[in-house]
Amino acid sequence: MTLELLKKSVRDIPDFPKKGIIFKDITPLLQNHETFSFIIDALSEELSKLKLDLIIGIESRGFIFSPVLAYQLKAGFAPVRKQGKLPWRTHQVNYSLEYGEAVLEIHQDALSSGMRVAVVDDLLATGGTAEAACRLVEKLGGKVEVIACVIELGFLKGRDRLSSYNVFSMLNY
Amino acid sequence: MTLELLKKSVRDIPDFPKKGIIFKDITPLLQNHETFSFIIDALSEELSKLKLDLIIGIESRGFIFSPVLAYQLKAGFAPVRKQGKLPWRTHQVNYSLEYGEAVLEIHQDALSSGMRVAVVDDLLATGGTAEAACRLVEKLGGKVEVIACVIELGFLKGRDRLSSYNVFSMLNY
Repeated sequence: MTLELLKKSVRDIPDFPKKGIIFKDITPLLQNHETFSFIIDALSEELSKLKLDLIIGIESRGFIFSPVLAYQLKAGFAPVRKQGKLPWRTHQVNYSLEYGEAVLEIHQDALSSGMRVAVVDDLLATGGTAEAACRLVEKLGGKVEVIACVIELGFLKGRDRLSSYNVFSMLNY
Repeated sequence: MTLELLKKSVRDIPDFPKKGIIFKDITPLLQNHETFSFIIDALSEELSKLKLDLIIGIESRGFIFSPVLAYQLKAGFAPVRKQGKLPWRTHQVNYSLEYGEAVLEIHQDALSSGMRVAVVDDLLATGGTAEAACRLVEKLGGKVEVIACVIELGFLKGRDRLSSYNVFSMLNY
């Protein structure tokens, strides 16, 4: 397996979810056990160096990768979700999207102060969502050791916005 | 670890998402590596007997368990999502919820005819969502070998509705 082969398994969908946007569809990567395992093993190896206590997954596609990593690394898993989805007491953060504003939430007991945390999502675009998730982790006293994602849209410069963090991505466009 | 201890890690949330419903919050189970691993290992052992080709996860909390199982069982993973979320060509199915109607979708290339499939969700309530996901799998020629979930609300009789399927749950209420 090579990164070039992996990239060939990502499907470009023009004008989704809005006109002018080319969406990176990772479902072909997930359907094939070999490509999915390759991604998990590579992320897992990278994150294993960091002695993580907790993996944070960002709703919804972030949920596909983060619990596998938590299981592999013997860490806990906690979700960051859109407003109104988490049932217990939450902290909230507002952030701006490519189109409009949104709110992300975390449970107030998702982690303890001093915990070493990875924030995981499928895709890094402008970095707004990842930054919001990091702020939620930090509000609870957690230390973001890495932001990890499968796909990075380098031309959107999310990495610049997240320059105070360690960012790891597998496939750069 | 025992099932009774696991049950103690599930948090009851009264009146969520609507008045009169007691929501089963599994986030405390996920945060603790030992309880999360116990669940994954138990589900994985059960499903390993079935020689599965593909694990289907139902959005959103179903995504938390299904890809870990796919990874462990060397199977593929494919998502079933709410209307408008999957970017490529889909099949749709309408189904009734406790409150209202909804649409679930699967990508038309999510699986090939004859594949052995598990449908995985966090919770089995009335069985409407799981049944809809099974219909999508069958529309593509897949064979549903098992419906697996972590929590079953036995008093809602989802198992009766799904009587033509093999249903496996870990924690029954």
